[in-house]
Amino acid sequence: MVKTASHTASPIESLLASCRPGWSLPRDFYSDETVYREDVERLWRRGWLFAGHACEIPKPGDYFTLEIDTDSLIIIRGEDGAIHGLHNVCRHRGSVLCTEPAGHAHRLVCPYHQWTYALDGRLLACRGMQEDLDKLQFSLLRVAAREVEGLIFISLAERPSPFEPARQLLSALAKPQGFPRAKVAKAVDYLVKANWKLVWENNRECFHCNLNHPQYIKANFDHYNADDATPFVREQMAAAVAHSEQKWAAAGLAATHKQTGMTIFPDADRNIWFSANRTALVDGYVSETMDGKQVAPLMGDYQEADVGTLRMRALPNFWNHSSCDHGVSTRLLPAGPQQTAIRVYWLVDAQAVEGRDYELAKLMPFWQLTSEQDWEICERQQRGVNSSAYSPGPYSTVKEYNVDGFVRWYLKMLKYGSND
Amino acid sequence: MVKTASHTASPIESLLASCRPGWSLPRDFYSDETVYREDVERLWRRGWLFAGHACEIPKPGDYFTLEIDTDSLIIIRGEDGAIHGLHNVCRHRGSVLCTEPAGHAHRLVCPYHQWTYALDGRLLACRGMQEDLDKLQFSLLRVAAREVEGLIFISLAERPSPFEPARQLLSALAKPQGFPRAKVAKAVDYLVKANWKLVWENNRECFHCNLNHPQYIKANFDHYNADDATPFVREQMAAAVAHSEQKWAAAGLAATHKQTGMTIFPDADRNIWFSANRTALVDGYVSETMDGKQVAPLMGDYQEADVGTLRMRALPNFWNHSSCDHGVSTRLLPAGPQQTAIRVYWLVDAQAVEGRDYELAKLMPFWQLTSEQDWEICERQQRGVNSSAYSPGPYSTVKEYNVDGFVRWYLKMLKYGSND
Amino acid sequence: MVKTASHTASPIESLLASCRPGWSLPRDFYSDETVYREDVERLWRRGWLFAGHACEIPKPGDYFTLEIDTDSLIIIRGEDGAIHGLHNVCRHRGSVLCTEPAGHAHRLVCPYHQWTYALDGRLLACRGMQEDLDKLQFSLLRVAAREVEGLIFISLAERPSPFEPARQLLSALAKPQGFPRAKVAKAVDYLVKANWKLVWENNRECFHCNLNHPQYIKANFDHYNADDATPFVREQMAAAVAHSEQKWAAAGLAATHKQTGMTIFPDADRNIWFSANRTALVDGYVSETMDGKQVAPLMGDYQEADVGTLRMRALPNFWNHSSCDHGVSTRLLPAGPQQTAIRVYWLVDAQAVEGRDYELAKLMPFWQLTSEQDWEICERQQRGVNSSAYSPGPYSTVKEYNVDGFVRWYLKMLKYGSND
Repeated sequence: MVKTASHTASPIESLLASCRPGWSLPRDFYSDETVYREDVERLWRRGWLFAGHACEIPKPGDYFTLEIDTDSLIIIRGEDGAIHGLHNVCRHRGSVLCTEPAGHAHRLVCPYHQWTYALDGRLLACRGMQEDLDKLQFSLLRVAAREVEGLIFISLAERPSPFEPARQLLSALAKPQGFPRAKVAKAVDYLVKANWKLVWENNRECFHCNLNHPQYIKANFDHYNADDATPFVREQMAAAVAHSEQKWAAAGLAATHKQTGMTIFPDADRNIWFSANRTALVDGYVSETMDGKQVAPLMGDYQEADVGTLRMRALPNFWNHSSCDHGVSTRLLPAGPQQTAIRVYWLVDAQAVEGRDYELAKLMPFWQLTSEQDWEICERQQRGVNSSAYSPGPYSTVKEYNVDGFVRWYLKMLKYGSND
Repeated sequence: MVKTASHTASPIESLLASCRPGWSLPRDFYSDETVYREDVERLWRRGWLFAGHACEIPKPGDYFTLEIDTDSLIIIRGEDGAIHGLHNVCRHRGSVLCTEPAGHAHRLVCPYHQWTYALDGRLLACRGMQEDLDKLQFSLLRVAAREVEGLIFISLAERPSPFEPARQLLSALAKPQGFPRAKVAKAVDYLVKANWKLVWENNRECFHCNLNHPQYIKANFDHYNADDATPFVREQMAAAVAHSEQKWAAAGLAATHKQTGMTIFPDADRNIWFSANRTALVDGYVSETMDGKQVAPLMGDYQEADVGTLRMRALPNFWNHSSCDHGVSTRLLPAGPQQTAIRVYWLVDAQAVEGRDYELAKLMPFWQLTSEQDWEICERQQRGVNSSAYSPGPYSTVKEYNVDGFVRWYLKMLKYGSND
Repeated sequence: MVKTASHTASPIESLLASCRPGWSLPRDFYSDETVYREDVERLWRRGWLFAGHACEIPKPGDYFTLEIDTDSLIIIRGEDGAIHGLHNVCRHRGSVLCTEPAGHAHRLVCPYHQWTYALDGRLLACRGMQEDLDKLQFSLLRVAAREVEGLIFISLAERPSPFEPARQLLSALAKPQGFPRAKVAKAVDYLVKANWKLVWENNRECFHCNLNHPQYIKANFDHYNADDATPFVREQMAAAVAHSEQKWAAAGLAATHKQTGMTIFPDADRNIWFSANRTALVDGYVSETMDGKQVAPLMGDYQEADVGTLRMRALPNFWNHSSCDHGVSTRLLPAGPQQTAIRVYWLVDAQAVEGRDYELAKLMPFWQLTSEQDWEICERQQRGVNSSAYSPGPYSTVKEYNVDGFVRWYLKMLKYGSND
């Protein structure tokens, strides 16, 4: 779908023309208000966004809210158990309806003049208005919402791109993790002073892991690439995979990523904005924790701890690493040209009791440290990118192929605005 | 007075064309920098603005300052007792002259190089300047200032619209309240994160009172309209009015608003930007206080407590509710597209002594609670209006006629920029 | 060098046309984002800027950083002892390299992926990149750096204007002060809410000193001008100069400014953006301290305390007053249209030991008070200049000749963008 001629000479088009394949983006993409607004319009208001976990709203009437740029959304479980996405904006005079980050409601009642909506957004009552007001015309604006294995995705697009391919892949791999029967043990919010794309570029390579993530690299093979995986490393990796394949086969799990380095994602050419795989950990690690030991009861369908890690990711705002005993989700939301609101969630089995079955002090550090190390990296990069001296630099073909892939996916979305 | 052709194609004109009568305004009117700048230029720098109370500056040389967007003003009592409005900007190099919010001065002396001005703004001395400098050319810029029954109004316009009609109405109704012999018992400043028009729209209906203002509705009939005033309410109201008319007639006071609901204001068609009336309170209330009891000595000419309430309002920035024993003024000042600086003043008789004749703990809660409830409403509305999902909604013809009236007045001012 | 035609109709050109010689600048010059951006491009990124003191980085590998608008710079002493100016931006993906305000480094290693640079900016190593990457193409961007008698100047220009004239003048006058053998006893950072030009205009006259700087005027004659230097003052001044000339001649020092009032600077017609002179203090003062007494060991080549004051200044961001025992440098950096980052440094002899040879409580107040008095003045002026009522005012020909000179220099730079 190509944009019409009226659009041809926009500042965005000139910027796009200045991009050099295989190199980082020109400064304005990471700092400028105009580009940011285009990002919001063409990507964030069109794609599928991870909103949160279904287990956060187990009962009809349970809801949480989230903010995407200046849009406030309500994610609520309806009376029939289905999840609805609604704009948190009263159709009368525009007040937000839900002012708390999460809660429970029988009806959605505007605090201003009590316009009253059903949990699916239909306007039920508006006392004091003229008799001939057609309530059907004043439902809360809905956004598409999909639940897949306990993960909630929404799209603000009028005609969202198909979700089915994502559902098929994610449900197959995420099923054993049991997210629908999980609970959020803890969530931490960050306001990171960096453009959302810098956060993704950081996520798309483990080139930076060696010196920045001392905890992470003990448990993983991601930071080795074709250039630096020694025979010894390859041997360790092969042993871990062989060991895993044997055990997991019995349990119906498959090691879907078997090489050093990161799995290829995204794939701009094939419009792949989501992916998932199961990956072996370093021998001796059964969970992404500080010492590799299990720190909470087994989740989902797992019968034993040695299941490697489930890894999922979806552009533009989600990734998750899940071990046998806990999962960690990361959600990005755009909050300005140089600011990203990030929430990191730690999930455990719904029946697990804090203090008895798990302790936050053992559950959280691995990913809390790794995440905060990354946010600091991103903020340093933003500061440098803001300089008049910044110019795009070359990506390593052997270590930053996924960063390049992300940039190519991004530019394609910016041009064509869709995953179709 | 219609604007010339050169102005026709401005973004404001397109926005104006997108307005739908009887519906709330499109988003940009409440959030956009360009519209805000137009509001400042066409309304705030042209209309009559409530500046403060004459009793704040009883003696020659007493002054206070106020900030209207980026303009700083000095309101000062001159040597002849007249009140002057002066721009707080030295004509030499532009420093502000008065840096304190209020004070007393014999001369206005610039702290930078001591250019010295009379209390009416004339440049008296500027040591160190060239001999041939014509002092007459360097008076402080003056703004029109009018005092009516202790209320100070100013206009930044070069040729302000006539103030006389406002003076006639306000002086007739405000006279018995005795504001010139009052004092400010307390003033509280708020920086409300909402466009100034949202604050006014909130003020122009009591549709929201039932659930938002539990204190206010005990004392008043405003929140009842044609649709929900039961026979019992009408009976109570009629009794209160009858009772009041009888008593007040003797005292020379008149109940000028006798219906349920709010008096009609503003009136865009007749260019009515100010109004005032006397309104009965619910039986058992002699003052707008938590329990309806008198909390300070009688003000002004009042001989007894049962005088209902004096209510005044003037666009774009003033309203006041006054009971027998105290008055409460609210002053709005624009401080950005999504920010309004609001001061609420509590006035009592000048002779009243805190601790002996009144206590702030009894004087303030009724209007402090009601005001802060409103600011919270406005901030919630601003958040929702900022959403890309916001679209104008319909006003209730029976309950929001004054909101519609305000919007029509506003659009007229924005187009023609004057109350003439 | 005149700009080409394409530039003719810019908003800056119209603004320039609206300037009135001998009067302060129109408001936008002091407040507007567009003008600020032009100031950064045409002045700050072209001229010679004071960066700091050579004694802050005595050993190879010692460095400090500074921020000029959004540019981050590293000033580092190379292995051969020369001082290098480098953009603090990795050529790989743009991260800042040095995150601390000062430190010591053997190599400059990017914290992101460990690209490793020599102290002069050459890329030495970039593990993980493709083999054919030409390291010579990825040196850190260099900025010109010059050291003159312990003062470091840098230029971000591609082809900086000649520094030699400044070096000649400054080295002749600054030599006896011995800054290369000094140390920074204390530095204080300020974020002043005023345009950088208002800070300079304040610096360029002592018309404001009488009432604003009670400490400063006790030690100096600057605040007297042709109009108010009484015969008694002239006599004192002449005596101080005569006394000084006699003594200093023996020591090879010269009193180069012998009149009341400030020396003429800058000189727009002759493109003089730097100057220096030695000036006598009031009799009884041997140092710019609260009581005029010496507060630290003699600096540099001085053999006795009675050496008056060395004064230096360089546009757009430096001035210094140095007495026999200490020097005070002021460095301005632009941080927004209405914000200037200012650092004030107090220097003493490198061998002096705090507590034994000097106390900050006696060293700092004279210039700390004078500086902070000035920042307050500038912030008051900014507030007034922001008013719609501000209009340019006339400069005093007898007292503000240097303010006028500064404005003329500034306008010339803005038009032609160079000191050439």
